[in-house]
Amino acid sequence: MIEIEVKARAEHQQVKELLTGMGAVLIGVQHHCDTYFNAPHRDFGETDEALRIRSVDGRSVMTYKGKKLDTVSKTREEFETEIDGGNTRSILLALGFYEAGVVKKTREVFRYENMTICLDNVGSLGEFIEVEITAESDVEIHTKDIFLFLAKLGIGEEDSIRTSYLEMVLLNNISEQCEEKKG
Amino acid sequence: MIEIEVKARAEHQQVKELLTGMGAVLIGVQHHCDTYFNAPHRDFGETDEALRIRSVDGRSVMTYKGKKLDTVSKTREEFETEIDGGNTRSILLALGFYEAGVVKKTREVFRYENMTICLDNVGSLGEFIEVEITAESDVEIHTKDIFLFLAKLGIGEEDSIRTSYLEMVLLNNISEQCEEKKG
Repeated sequence: MIEIEVKARAEHQQVKELLTGMGAVLIGVQHHCDTYFNAPHRDFGETDEALRIRSVDGRSVMTYKGKKLDTVSKTREEFETEIDGGNTRSILLALGFYEAGVVKKTREVFRYENMTICLDNVGSLGEFIEVEITAESDVEIHTKDIFLFLAKLGIGEEDSIRTSYLEMVLLNNISEQCEEKKG
Repeated sequence: MIEIEVKARAEHQQVKELLTGMGAVLIGVQHHCDTYFNAPHRDFGETDEALRIRSVDGRSVMTYKGKKLDTVSKTREEFETEIDGGNTRSILLALGFYEAGVVKKTREVFRYENMTICLDNVGSLGEFIEVEITAESDVEIHTKDIFLFLAKLGIGEEDSIRTSYLEMVLLNNISEQCEEKKG
């Protein structure tokens, strides 16, 4: 499964009015605390991979993201599993993985046609939009669809940001910590 | 949490009669398909660690076991989390881990006092007993308790086997495969 994803900065109030006008549906508000891990045998900062434990409103999910597959979007191979957050953290640390950083955000999730739209408020980093299509193939077609959709919100291809929240947080040197429940 | 565990060969029919006589309770029969992984950055065969995905009657669990902590029992540090088996396998392979071997067995689980007793029928390897106590500390006391219990079944400390099923399977060169449901 491939996640085709485009991210940009966005004024949430303005975007929400446009989304509502189009008929996009708000399906939920989530509070994420994301702990990113780096590997003992290769540097994910260099290989452009990510390994994350997301704690979201009491549940924990582990996600692996492969390196980006093109030069304009954030499309990657992605695998995800629900987990016990505390024990999985212990497994990763025992295997030699180590914490690279923590990102806390509030995410409002909208659904529109085959797209998931996330309005992310990321601590001191500010407001962002992420538009995502999950598919087996046809990356180029889906990427084009996402940019056509973003254009309706006044966001152009040149506004696309490929830097991850983790990279931004590390650049800003903000240190946080998730309150993981031990399992 | 530490798992204090002793394993030995055992004639199941004879052991079951003794267990029943003592008042041990059969709490279930499980069908395990265990896939063991090795790491890209260190050889678990040398470090005496284990990383396993166990598929048991439709559920999947990932377990990490640290190296053995003494010279007579199979006591180790252990962390466990329920997972989506197919996606977690994909995550491990993407991270560079690789399959070391597969062990299939039928396990009858009994409970007696603070002990879990497993009667394992491991494919071509034969019949075994594993006795386990899970505790925070006091490894020596619990190990002694387990050997006292095994003595009642006619099994002596010299019968204790520290070789894992995986090692036995690899020595016998039996190749199998789990039928993991893709998540």
